[in-house]
Amino acid sequence: MITPCIRSHFSKQAGMEVYLKKEFLQYTGSFKERGARYALLSLSADKRQKGVIAASAGNHAQALSFHGKSLKIPVTVVMPIIAPIMKIQCCRQYGANVIVKGNDMAEAKKIALKMGKDEGYTYINGYDNPHVLAGQGTMGLEIVEQVKDLDAVILPVGGGSMIAGVGLAIKTLAPRCKLIGVESEMCPGFTNALKEGKPTYTKSNPTLADGLAVPVVGYNSFATASSLVDKMVVVKEEWIAIAILRLVEMEKCVVEGAGATALAALLSGHLDDFKGKKIVLVCSGGNIDTTILGRCLERGLAADGRLIKFAVTVSDRPGGMSDLCHLLSSLGVSIKDMIHERNWIKSDIFSVELTCVGETRDLEHANEVKNALKENFPNCTFVDFPNPEPGAGEVFELSKR
Amino acid sequence: MITPCIRSHFSKQAGMEVYLKKEFLQYTGSFKERGARYALLSLSADKRQKGVIAASAGNHAQALSFHGKSLKIPVTVVMPIIAPIMKIQCCRQYGANVIVKGNDMAEAKKIALKMGKDEGYTYINGYDNPHVLAGQGTMGLEIVEQVKDLDAVILPVGGGSMIAGVGLAIKTLAPRCKLIGVESEMCPGFTNALKEGKPTYTKSNPTLADGLAVPVVGYNSFATASSLVDKMVVVKEEWIAIAILRLVEMEKCVVEGAGATALAALLSGHLDDFKGKKIVLVCSGGNIDTTILGRCLERGLAADGRLIKFAVTVSDRPGGMSDLCHLLSSLGVSIKDMIHERNWIKSDIFSVELTCVGETRDLEHANEVKNALKENFPNCTFVDFPNPEPGAGEVFELSKR
Repeated sequence: MITPCIRSHFSKQAGMEVYLKKEFLQYTGSFKERGARYALLSLSADKRQKGVIAASAGNHAQALSFHGKSLKIPVTVVMPIIAPIMKIQCCRQYGANVIVKGNDMAEAKKIALKMGKDEGYTYINGYDNPHVLAGQGTMGLEIVEQVKDLDAVILPVGGGSMIAGVGLAIKTLAPRCKLIGVESEMCPGFTNALKEGKPTYTKSNPTLADGLAVPVVGYNSFATASSLVDKMVVVKEEWIAIAILRLVEMEKCVVEGAGATALAALLSGHLDDFKGKKIVLVCSGGNIDTTILGRCLERGLAADGRLIKFAVTVSDRPGGMSDLCHLLSSLGVSIKDMIHERNWIKSDIFSVELTCVGETRDLEHANEVKNALKENFPNCTFVDFPNPEPGAGEVFELSKR
Repeated sequence: MITPCIRSHFSKQAGMEVYLKKEFLQYTGSFKERGARYALLSLSADKRQKGVIAASAGNHAQALSFHGKSLKIPVTVVMPIIAPIMKIQCCRQYGANVIVKGNDMAEAKKIALKMGKDEGYTYINGYDNPHVLAGQGTMGLEIVEQVKDLDAVILPVGGGSMIAGVGLAIKTLAPRCKLIGVESEMCPGFTNALKEGKPTYTKSNPTLADGLAVPVVGYNSFATASSLVDKMVVVKEEWIAIAILRLVEMEKCVVEGAGATALAALLSGHLDDFKGKKIVLVCSGGNIDTTILGRCLERGLAADGRLIKFAVTVSDRPGGMSDLCHLLSSLGVSIKDMIHERNWIKSDIFSVELTCVGETRDLEHANEVKNALKENFPNCTFVDFPNPEPGAGEVFELSKR
């Protein structure tokens, strides 16, 4: 379906006109539907009847299952055992034949390819099938229609189907628009491929942007996109977590890690060249596990100084803890956690070290609390949150090739 | 601005066509902008120049501050000291004169009324000013245009401006459409007013739907709405928490407690009369504190059986805890927390009671884990999550008046 592309609240703070392409509003929660549906529609009547198969741990499996049902094409998806149960359940609800097998994507793919061959199913690669690339391109057509005189499109890159399809549409219809791909530092497969001049194996480490963790980018995707890309940005994981939080707070929307990387590139200062210009950030999907979302929110609060952690040694006699609690209460701090340490400390035997986590209103309040604590408890030590530096990460300018 | 009214993923599960009116996408995150802007536009040139004042802890203050700036009308808002810092900061950013004073809304209002009189500012009541009511009515016009042949509109009720404005628009343009108001059990002010035949004081208890906590509903709002309402539903707080979680998971959107009450009414089974019909749920705002959102997600996970809590007594010698951990690991449970109790237990001195919180995949997995634990540790006890009953809450049918 056509998703909205809406002016973002980040525009003011960023000093540029920022639009968000809200692909997470697709029925199955990601842009993958575009390619999946187009690939299914492109099959011959015979192949449609026999059915299709794919290996995927996530969005492609959901997209294929959903559109297979709507087009009455039998769909089998092989999902590795690490696939989130929620996504497995979704695929089953859409009526697909779901096989949970294989320890990782590579194993699942091997199983799916063999089964496809044995059973006569057509294998539909989620990031390299040419029809999938063409389908993703429809997003580019929409963007060009929705935002006139665009200066840049910034989009996440996993296997490369989106940057290939969208890139071709954009560069054809709006040639002066820059095309910028974003990856996580944990799986910079496309940046590596561009450096090497061909798809190469890149080890994926655990990442918030699980949707982008493709060890070898698609060959067709790479062949199509490599000459179109103007710049690749590799962002730090911490910036992805903050981008997820900011999208919740400022845009009231739930975006998964992969879908938040374009904003992560903006927040970390990698798009400062576009001050005064007009850019589109593609928010590609919203299928984030609730547990992970919760953790991102908590970490974001710590990064914002709205959660503080400190250790303070107080008297272990009646009143010691009370004094601390009274001080925190008078400062408007809500105590979330308190851990007592009596043994592994150097102070006298009548002391206890309390490690506390407290809720503060903002960074200013956090600093006020810090100063008051230091004044009343000179031994107090704070655990600083490892805030990511602006500009951290890597940039690969393709013009410098 | 015109917000989208989109077919919801809840339609299938609910057995009816469900549409969500996404008012949380308004610039300041709530429907309050409609009334605030219309009230400001309705002022005489003289009054515009002198400026306006209002007391509000939340959405009305933000709406007034934002539109005051855009219309170049000076705005003063008095916010009680309990107002979320984020909302105070937003109002300041919009350029309003923000006075943080008064322990609660009643005190803030007293201060604002006096200051308005002294300084010649026009007081704009956020839930009873007739222009505010008329402004909220624009949402009703949009709904009637966006969804044809509608059977019911379900909306949250606080001070009553929305149900008055939207109700009048709906009942005029689509008279057979039912109008259903929803309140939290913690502040059922409008239901009480309907029972009494006039606005009456209703004590507000702390609620997730803080935006609805108005002790005495608006007199104009009540006079306009009381003859239009077909039914009032009073929902349990637990259902509001679950509605917030479901909106995050299924609709990828962030809605505050007040804004989720209409869905809470659906989920708790109070709208079952509309099976096979077409209804609109008004999601009125998205300004939820991130800390609160995090807590709703966690509680929701517990309610869904995706977090489990249990206590088990094991040997306090090397290996006791290891056995438990090994079992949990083999079952695919991730341990989130473990607390040791050695004193307040009845078992022998060489035992320890471990209270654990673990992450499970779903209710089925949680039950599987329960059974395996019971088998290996017969003393194991579980803390059941107090799941709200379907149908809990109260319904007040106005046809039975």
